[in-house]
Amino acid sequence: MFEKMVLAGVGLICGSLACDLRRCKLVREIVGYGRSESNLKLAKKKGIIDSYFLRPEEFPGGVDFLMMGTPVETIVPLTRAFLPKLEPGCIVSDVGSVKGEIVRGMEKLLPKNIVFVAGHPIAGSEQWGAQAARENLFVGHRTVLTPIKTTDEKALKKVATLWRKVGADVEIMHPDVHDQVLGVISHLPHVLVYALVNALERTHLKGVDLKSYCAGGFKDFTRIASSRPELWRDICLMNRKALGRSLGDYIKYLEQLNRWIKNEKGALLEKEFARAFAVRAEIP
Amino acid sequence: MFEKMVLAGVGLICGSLACDLRRCKLVREIVGYGRSESNLKLAKKKGIIDSYFLRPEEFPGGVDFLMMGTPVETIVPLTRAFLPKLEPGCIVSDVGSVKGEIVRGMEKLLPKNIVFVAGHPIAGSEQWGAQAARENLFVGHRTVLTPIKTTDEKALKKVATLWRKVGADVEIMHPDVHDQVLGVISHLPHVLVYALVNALERTHLKGVDLKSYCAGGFKDFTRIASSRPELWRDICLMNRKALGRSLGDYIKYLEQLNRWIKNEKGALLEKEFARAFAVRAEIP
Repeated sequence: MFEKMVLAGVGLICGSLACDLRRCKLVREIVGYGRSESNLKLAKKKGIIDSYFLRPEEFPGGVDFLMMGTPVETIVPLTRAFLPKLEPGCIVSDVGSVKGEIVRGMEKLLPKNIVFVAGHPIAGSEQWGAQAARENLFVGHRTVLTPIKTTDEKALKKVATLWRKVGADVEIMHPDVHDQVLGVISHLPHVLVYALVNALERTHLKGVDLKSYCAGGFKDFTRIASSRPELWRDICLMNRKALGRSLGDYIKYLEQLNRWIKNEKGALLEKEFARAFAVRAEIP
Repeated sequence: MFEKMVLAGVGLICGSLACDLRRCKLVREIVGYGRSESNLKLAKKKGIIDSYFLRPEEFPGGVDFLMMGTPVETIVPLTRAFLPKLEPGCIVSDVGSVKGEIVRGMEKLLPKNIVFVAGHPIAGSEQWGAQAARENLFVGHRTVLTPIKTTDEKALKKVATLWRKVGADVEIMHPDVHDQVLGVISHLPHVLVYALVNALERTHLKGVDLKSYCAGGFKDFTRIASSRPELWRDICLMNRKALGRSLGDYIKYLEQLNRWIKNEKGALLEKEFARAFAVRAEIP
């Protein structure tokens, strides 16, 4: 399917993708790029990549597929650094958790003969690095592709096929809709949980080690606070428009619940809790 | 240890306790009380209780231990209904998730010869009813007992021993401190998750079934929204002082994060996320 692929950022997502592409013989050669040589060494040792390079100017020749898997803020600037070495016909894709700003950045950046297909496999977790890469990560998960009017149809089909072959359910969505969806189902929960863990840390009760009470439920609930802080800083900033709207609405709603709790509006409170209970039961 | 015990509310907590007390031969006879006869029938069929009654005035004679496991708002009023039938020396205890108001209510209600020991086994989940009862539910979990100055020392020791014998780690705490702790680690997360699920329901994106994106992480994260709405209404109302304070602080903190996201204060945001990451890593 592809001759030579560069993976920029060999972490959980791109590392796992590489494992599957190799196993399924969808690519002949895989070259890794990253800033951490120890991570790339590990990826090579694990057979995820064939070789690697550490500086953008060392980008190899003959690459027909470039997959950008670095933090969202770096995807456009790093592609710009690779650009002098990109050959006509090369397909560029990405796995960033935010799409609108990346799609617009690439649209401005890339010449006509280098095509971009934006994507987001929804299979992330709080794990990271090549050590977290594993086969079949995408099976049963969605990969959202977010083409715009100018996206090359043939390249889109090729990238969609690639994701389907590694087991993902491919969905097509507008980049801004994607950002609204992910803002609510992923970015908002991350902010809430980071904030909750800090709320715990700020609560000082004499003689009580609050953390010791957090085994079990609270620990499960706050698992996503173990996600990498700098990645989530970037995701929140890049998706600040959609996330800001969701977070603003959420705060207003919390204020209403807080008033109802303070004023003992039991019936209103129960109605809201019962609605959430019913919605939760509908989640497949 | 006890001759005859009445369990008011044979659900996950009291049902499981009954299983263990019987297995460990800590009580000779267990009588259930509740409003749902089908639940009590099931409890009897499962061998959790020996018999049951449905009206407070049918409270049996010879009871030396009454365990209140009904919703928090009903614990004091129902004890009041049982009071004419309670015999001198009977120990009353409870498993309510809120303690201050219950302790104060019982203090006012009970005569000197009926002693109350307030407790809260932190082993709840979103499951309920006798069908959820199981052995060894409390092993490795804390049971917080919240005596006050007037609490009978001997009864306190007896109730503590009971919980230790079924595997719980017993901790002594002031009722108001308990309510602050649980407000932060349990009641606040429940409100946040109910609110998050409703935020999802209120977000309408044309052509997108948001719920279909919620398998996996979001579903795990929102498991507690499957808790019984009416129970949590009562818990929130009864702990409205401590919960209101936690929720108010949390809202202010979210507003700050939202401002930082909008104004692209990446360094401040990363610092907060990194703090949460570090705190989360310290949870045992």
